Amino acid sequence: MKNLKLTSLSSDDRKRTVVTVDNVKIGEDFVVIAGPCSVESEEQTIKTARKVKEAGANMLRGGAFKPRTSPYAFQGLGLQGLKILEKAKRETGLPVVTEVTDPRDVSWVCEYADVLQIGARNMQNFSLLKEVGKVDRPVLLKRGINSTLEEWLNCAEYVLAEGNQNVILCERGIRTFETYTRNTLDLGIVPSVKEVSHLPIIVDPSHGTGKLSVIEPMSLAAMAAGADGIIIEVHCNPCEALCDKDQAMPPDVFAALMKKLAALRSCMHEMDQDKKNIIVHRMKNI
Amino acid sequence: MKNLKLTSLSSDDRKRTVVTVDNVKIGEDFVVIAGPCSVESEEQTIKTARKVKEAGANMLRGGAFKPRTSPYAFQGLGLQGLKILEKAKRETGLPVVTEVTDPRDVSWVCEYADVLQIGARNMQNFSLLKEVGKVDRPVLLKRGINSTLEEWLNCAEYVLAEGNQNVILCERGIRTFETYTRNTLDLGIVPSVKEVSHLPIIVDPSHGTGKLSVIEPMSLAAMAAGADGIIIEVHCNPCEALCDKDQAMPPDVFAALMKKLAALRSCMHEMDQDKKNIIVHRMKNI
Amino acid sequence: MKNLKLTSLSSDDRKRTVVTVDNVKIGEDFVVIAGPCSVESEEQTIKTARKVKEAGANMLRGGAFKPRTSPYAFQGLGLQGLKILEKAKRETGLPVVTEVTDPRDVSWVCEYADVLQIGARNMQNFSLLKEVGKVDRPVLLKRGINSTLEEWLNCAEYVLAEGNQNVILCERGIRTFETYTRNTLDLGIVPSVKEVSHLPIIVDPSHGTGKLSVIEPMSLAAMAAGADGIIIEVHCNPCEALCDKDQAMPPDVFAALMKKLAALRSCMHEMDQDKKNIIVHRMKNI
Amino acid sequence: MKNLKLTSLSSDDRKRTVVTVDNVKIGEDFVVIAGPCSVESEEQTIKTARKVKEAGANMLRGGAFKPRTSPYAFQGLGLQGLKILEKAKRETGLPVVTEVTDPRDVSWVCEYADVLQIGARNMQNFSLLKEVGKVDRPVLLKRGINSTLEEWLNCAEYVLAEGNQNVILCERGIRTFETYTRNTLDLGIVPSVKEVSHLPIIVDPSHGTGKLSVIEPMSLAAMAAGADGIIIEVHCNPCEALCDKDQAMPPDVFAALMKKLAALRSCMHEMDQDKKNIIVHRMKNI
Repeated sequence: MKNLKLTSLSSDDRKRTVVTVDNVKIGEDFVVIAGPCSVESEEQTIKTARKVKEAGANMLRGGAFKPRTSPYAFQGLGLQGLKILEKAKRETGLPVVTEVTDPRDVSWVCEYADVLQIGARNMQNFSLLKEVGKVDRPVLLKRGINSTLEEWLNCAEYVLAEGNQNVILCERGIRTFETYTRNTLDLGIVPSVKEVSHLPIIVDPSHGTGKLSVIEPMSLAAMAAGADGIIIEVHCNPCEALCDKDQAMPPDVFAALMKKLAALRSCMHEMDQDKKNIIVHRMKNI
Repeated sequence: MKNLKLTSLSSDDRKRTVVTVDNVKIGEDFVVIAGPCSVESEEQTIKTARKVKEAGANMLRGGAFKPRTSPYAFQGLGLQGLKILEKAKRETGLPVVTEVTDPRDVSWVCEYADVLQIGARNMQNFSLLKEVGKVDRPVLLKRGINSTLEEWLNCAEYVLAEGNQNVILCERGIRTFETYTRNTLDLGIVPSVKEVSHLPIIVDPSHGTGKLSVIEPMSLAAMAAGADGIIIEVHCNPCEALCDKDQAMPPDVFAALMKKLAALRSCMHEMDQDKKNIIVHRMKNI
Repeated sequence: MKNLKLTSLSSDDRKRTVVTVDNVKIGEDFVVIAGPCSVESEEQTIKTARKVKEAGANMLRGGAFKPRTSPYAFQGLGLQGLKILEKAKRETGLPVVTEVTDPRDVSWVCEYADVLQIGARNMQNFSLLKEVGKVDRPVLLKRGINSTLEEWLNCAEYVLAEGNQNVILCERGIRTFETYTRNTLDLGIVPSVKEVSHLPIIVDPSHGTGKLSVIEPMSLAAMAAGADGIIIEVHCNPCEALCDKDQAMPPDVFAALMKKLAALRSCMHEMDQDKKNIIVHRMKNI
Repeated sequence: MKNLKLTSLSSDDRKRTVVTVDNVKIGEDFVVIAGPCSVESEEQTIKTARKVKEAGANMLRGGAFKPRTSPYAFQGLGLQGLKILEKAKRETGLPVVTEVTDPRDVSWVCEYADVLQIGARNMQNFSLLKEVGKVDRPVLLKRGINSTLEEWLNCAEYVLAEGNQNVILCERGIRTFETYTRNTLDLGIVPSVKEVSHLPIIVDPSHGTGKLSVIEPMSLAAMAAGADGIIIEVHCNPCEALCDKDQAMPPDVFAALMKKLAALRSCMHEMDQDKKNIIVHRMKNI
């Protein structure tokens, strides 16, 4: 892991980055980002935004630009989608995370987005990375579908090298030979990132598994593995979702998950507390 | 997932297999199997066995036959190793899990082993599967390093088809392009297995990550994902381990992990309890 | 392979695309594109261009924009590099293939390039694909490092859907677990492409293997598998190459390879002739 | 590639192993092994054997023990199959290659087989490797579906270390994310093997691609890449094949392939001759 001048965890102070978005602190609190895969309509987006807010989500996700395998698949609503997200933020107070796919769009998407997402397919789109490195919006950098930790951190380095220090890493599943789930969520990357980098890391169990029934256990597992948050696809009416229908979580399932996460969070918190007490105790006895 | 006549979860009764080994019930309790990668000496094995027993492990692992990439690497102590395991069991009461690699060894290894392990490299060694299918010892079937869920369950089917119903599946990491960890632990396979099969599934975070620092968070994550247990490599003196040194956990780190697992277990238990209460409550109101 | 309206081989006329660049016909002749990985200086580029021209290459390759894993690695000479390529073309008459990585660069890079290359990392950079789909330069579309045939052809479809029909596919090796070679060249993709698409396909054995000793046999194998050409990295002074040193072929080795390719080409040509004669013969006898 | 004491190419004499089976010399001539995937009946086997003999094949393949993913799939005829192969040899004179899957079968299968095949799933079945290392039959060692060159050569080392020096390596395709072909044939492994080991290497384009239309070009490509032979599945009546129907080649297609291989062989031979002449010429001038 050489040449990661800005991304590496300093062995001196071991200081970790906390990315602040409005009142949300990624890298400090466990953060839940939720919302539809893509912004389909004002009604769908605002209805979903209210539901996830109600259940306790901290931020709203929603795609206005959708990179799709086929040129004939739904490509997103573009500017109209961004305006809907802006309205959803006004109504719920939730900061907005949305994807940007073209370096020419970065500056004006910043008018609508609180966090700029770089998708897995664009992880090594260096022109785009340099562009988001120049603006004052945090960047959610998804891991490429077959990238190593080293390649991923080098992409973060591209952003940091341009001056933008606010990068949030996001594990979203890698391509393996397993076909039962859509991708294979690599939770081992979470403690691995923590070991070598100061950047916060969240997990996307929706894309990471592509299977509704697997999302809840993997969300809990992500927290247990030490992730700084999760990003979940919630849709007010999953069977009508225009994309990624099989992984869209209905609002009531999401609300139940949030309760479990809260229970697990306090359990994990106590563990950490115990650990700190032991350290304090040991230090007193020296 | 066709033709898995015996391995599939019945959609009628959804009954799950519980494998009983002495007083340990795999599929009911969360089970921790711990011990050295390979049996190196009586002293090393018994010392380690005592330590893991003390920390609360339920079973002892240890290899007497070691399948190694190179013919010139340490191949295990064979019969002598089995005798040491037998002694370790007498001293600690822990049932013994050990690997068998040759169909000709199955019958006599049963004299010493409480559970027969089939390693990842032998997952599709059908002669061996048929042989362990004929004996009355539970089988711990590791997932092949690049096997799909369907291929794995078909291997379990080979064992069940011979009459042995006591198969415990074990996820031990798959080969991916990530090199920071030795393998990539696929925790998503845990809820996937639960969805299609009645067999219990445990997780091996030691081989699955190959990195001491990642084992603890992945053990907690395995529990959070719904695994029925974990199998961990513990060595009384890791730096002297004859194989897989980098993933050998010292006894005190293991003891600390066991405490965290206990805390997490009661948290998970409450969540399940809440879920059951809600169901009971709903049923009363019908 | 649904929805590949423009990229599919028509089952009616089975007509294949021939891409014409100056006097080179890709899809008709076997084409050899050669030159340095990156344009490093006027001297290096022109010297190499002359050597490959002398040995019989049909086109010149050379990177002015280099997408590199690390932001601190040599990123290419940019415009200056393009001007050097232009000069090399003037001196040798070889048409120029060069990579474009940013949608904002497409229009002006066209002033210098005869063929626009889309690199493996940008295969699914849809903004870039749409942009090169709007200009009148042929596009050399490399396969992504872990892309399926279907994903790749969908990317070609993005270009064709914008109006540019001149796409040349390029297999450049996929990432596998083999580490002896840098990538694994998938020659089976050549007849596979021929079976489903009318687009020409060439092979890059330099990136595909990353190992000088393996490039010659794989170049011959590519021809035997039915490829429409190869693209080879040649450097007038390999040990001084600024990138991908291990795969840079010295001019004399390249010249020897060209002779073998010529011999193999006439052998392959006779085979095809025999096949046609048999068909003609059969038709006469009906 | 350390510790490959017996398998490595000696840097002193660079002597290569030639495995002799009756009058066939693998490692010297280009060898074609052909026949059905599995022995299904006397009629099918002998009919196919005669056809491949007629077309110029050097050896007969046919499986009597079939390792299958599902326990309920056709498992081969066993001893009866071996007797049929023996009869086919008597009728055609072709030496027989057949798979062995269980260490307990090795000694008696030797009564019927001229070459013992170790399948991809058993590449790391070390008990089996040690057993075939003790008999006086050449071993055809297939590469595991996701094995590296180093792992593979270590398996050959297991055989050689037991005393059997006659190992033929066989590339049979690796598992990748491409689904158009069943596996991805890694022809780059051919020159890679030649670089580090003295053992001969052949290629299996039938399993390696799983697609009839791709087998011919990949057979030619295998020869062009420098392979010592190929092993092809031919069935006298492909649509009735009990296994691997999609890759079974009809006898007339096989005969046409053999003609092309002959043409290519003489072309390749001339290339080698030219190379030798140049060397001789250079040596004379020193």
